[in-house]
Amino acid sequence: METYTMRPIGILRTPHAEPKGTPIQPSGAGDTPGVAEVFPEFAPGLKDLDGFSHVILLYVFHLAGPPKLLVTPFLDEGQHGVFSTRAPSRPNPLGLSVVRLERVEGNRVFLRGADMVDGTPLLDIKPHVGAFNAGGPERLGWLEKRLGQAGAARDDGRFAATESGEEKRGGGKE
Amino acid sequence: METYTMRPIGILRTPHAEPKGTPIQPSGAGDTPGVAEVFPEFAPGLKDLDGFSHVILLYVFHLAGPPKLLVTPFLDEGQHGVFSTRAPSRPNPLGLSVVRLERVEGNRVFLRGADMVDGTPLLDIKPHVGAFNAGGPERLGWLEKRLGQAGAARDDGRFAATESGEEKRGGGKE
Repeated sequence: METYTMRPIGILRTPHAEPKGTPIQPSGAGDTPGVAEVFPEFAPGLKDLDGFSHVILLYVFHLAGPPKLLVTPFLDEGQHGVFSTRAPSRPNPLGLSVVRLERVEGNRVFLRGADMVDGTPLLDIKPHVGAFNAGGPERLGWLEKRLGQAGAARDDGRFAATESGEEKRGGGKE
Repeated sequence: METYTMRPIGILRTPHAEPKGTPIQPSGAGDTPGVAEVFPEFAPGLKDLDGFSHVILLYVFHLAGPPKLLVTPFLDEGQHGVFSTRAPSRPNPLGLSVVRLERVEGNRVFLRGADMVDGTPLLDIKPHVGAFNAGGPERLGWLEKRLGQAGAARDDGRFAATESGEEKRGGGKE
């Protein structure tokens, strides 16, 4: 089977030391600051990013446990397919957050709305442009009735490898 | 350096045979149909996805050429840092599209707004929930004046490895 090797472009610095207690989405993180420390060799790629008010961060859920196809997410008691949730225990442990960009200084991108654990490996930054989407969303499935809880909800560690002694989704070496 | 190995969860089927001529965003793809064919072993992860009107697809720009930190995107004549664009020639060739979900049949997710090349390796599906974002966007940087062109713009092959004889970003074997 074909595989693809991803190399972090930087590290996310946030006040959240571990999964447990971390806000589950940027909307719940409020003004929580964070810094995307891009490795110096990638800093030229940040040119003109500061014109955008919001950016998409793609990163690795490096502390997540093994993949689960059915999960009980933080916002519901029922089981749902992992692809209909944002749970970290995904086949490919890719996380996505749309955060507010405050400023760029050299290789450091200052953010608000940080909902990632400190030390999270950063894979990509993209400008957030809602007008690029194929519209929507109009329907939010099982989340429809639970959306109001997202702001106050915090990670309880249920998907973290370290809580249960399982192996982390950490990377290989090269 | 730590690396992370991603294994596709499926393949994206679309009417776009090659990068050249492909719409550059779902908003420009209109009703163009596509199918995310998830490998059967991952099909249980699709449970309850059909309640959502829009989903985020994360995939590999498998035909992109080598990474460039400064790019001239389809919508502008100037050079911008790759992280302030959606250009495929990224350090980690991760693509993101927010598409309309039509229905789910077994392991097949039927979509509208397909802006990916046929055969694109799919890494993840997430529900699109704008309310999870840290607000925005309010400012769109260099794109602000160019957004109106995004619908009609088509890929001209400038980032494709095959156009220039460069090596593709294709995966390893395992």
